[in-house]
Amino acid sequence: MTVTTTPLSSTPRTTFTRNADRGATDRAMLHEIVQEGMFCHLGVVMDGAPVVLPTTYAVDLSPDAPDAPDGTLYFHGSVAAGNLVTAGGDTTVCITVTHVDGLVLAKSGFHHSANYRSAVIFGTPRKLERAEKRHALDLLVDHLVPGRAATLREPTRKDLAATTVLALPLTEVSVKVRSGGVKDEESDLELPIWAGVLPLHTVAGDPQTADDCTEPVPTHVKERATILNQH
Amino acid sequence: MTVTTTPLSSTPRTTFTRNADRGATDRAMLHEIVQEGMFCHLGVVMDGAPVVLPTTYAVDLSPDAPDAPDGTLYFHGSVAAGNLVTAGGDTTVCITVTHVDGLVLAKSGFHHSANYRSAVIFGTPRKLERAEKRHALDLLVDHLVPGRAATLREPTRKDLAATTVLALPLTEVSVKVRSGGVKDEESDLELPIWAGVLPLHTVAGDPQTADDCTEPVPTHVKERATILNQH
Repeated sequence: MTVTTTPLSSTPRTTFTRNADRGATDRAMLHEIVQEGMFCHLGVVMDGAPVVLPTTYAVDLSPDAPDAPDGTLYFHGSVAAGNLVTAGGDTTVCITVTHVDGLVLAKSGFHHSANYRSAVIFGTPRKLERAEKRHALDLLVDHLVPGRAATLREPTRKDLAATTVLALPLTEVSVKVRSGGVKDEESDLELPIWAGVLPLHTVAGDPQTADDCTEPVPTHVKERATILNQH
Repeated sequence: MTVTTTPLSSTPRTTFTRNADRGATDRAMLHEIVQEGMFCHLGVVMDGAPVVLPTTYAVDLSPDAPDAPDGTLYFHGSVAAGNLVTAGGDTTVCITVTHVDGLVLAKSGFHHSANYRSAVIFGTPRKLERAEKRHALDLLVDHLVPGRAATLREPTRKDLAATTVLALPLTEVSVKVRSGGVKDEESDLELPIWAGVLPLHTVAGDPQTADDCTEPVPTHVKERATILNQH
């Protein structure tokens, strides 16, 4: 199991209340989690209640990122989406990226767990305009399928007007990782019960070409599938 | 694409602001999503900010469920977990279960999307005690690996004291589903750009027996892997 002990930032909400040994301090793990992930869960507060919805995202971890050296996370949606309107309204959001790597099956229910890697990012998003918005939209496509944005029809003025793109700095972040094997009670080890880990992976199936499309499956799509299926 | 039009409940926060055509009205789809899922994201409000963390869950959809006929979702964690303390404190939480079924790759960035099934559940959780808590803990194990709970060492008084188990009725729920192929602009269909769907699946690897365990991999674990790998 991972043995690093503190979060990447030390605000009250990124200081662990428990299982601090699963906290990762190095930004390399944060980068791995957000680069490998394809979807996140965006939390906002609407009328006093939490609202958590899935969405895609992208990251810019380059030295040229607006929030360098921390890096920037981008997310987007319809200008009419209620949670995006809230997220763009000078409020704190929480974005969580989670990879589940396996089920940890112990000899007692109590020690059942999951191997996972998660990054929890807090902050007040900034709304993008013009060139930066355009650039972020390309990153949002390329995050899912690297190399694809350059092959697409350019966004129209109407496309851009219909889309809100928000940026969140990767500054107030906590990362938690559980990896490795089962941790049973010493007194349970002799019990005749199977214990172990069932690994889980996200994989890609064969690309399904649209009915009205006669183009061959491009290399960037095949490569994306190959990378997902390497585990 | 799915064509049902209203949420399962009609409170303001489960009424769609957009893409209402992706809303599902039948509880069968809700049941499929929560039964097939293994992990959810739990959102609570702490000090005015949203906090979204991944966790496991279970559901009881039987006629004997405490919230029948709607059914009950259970989640749990350490009594010391800050978000669980908040969730158990007579407040509204949001639990979201998401399946991502594929990347929808259109001829424009604007029409890129994902095939997904998500259930968003709002409510005020109820804290469980005694027999109901014990029962829910078994369901939490069996939800991940059906048939496993009965094979385990029984929870001790200490295990039970260290664990908070909460129940949320599956009453205030919205379900959204996007399925099917690419939906490009008519005016883009002739462009020489590949469009299609890259399907995504969660699969299981081979069970990894714990170093100190000499038991054979049980049928319930093999069957769990088989079901995950049927797609």
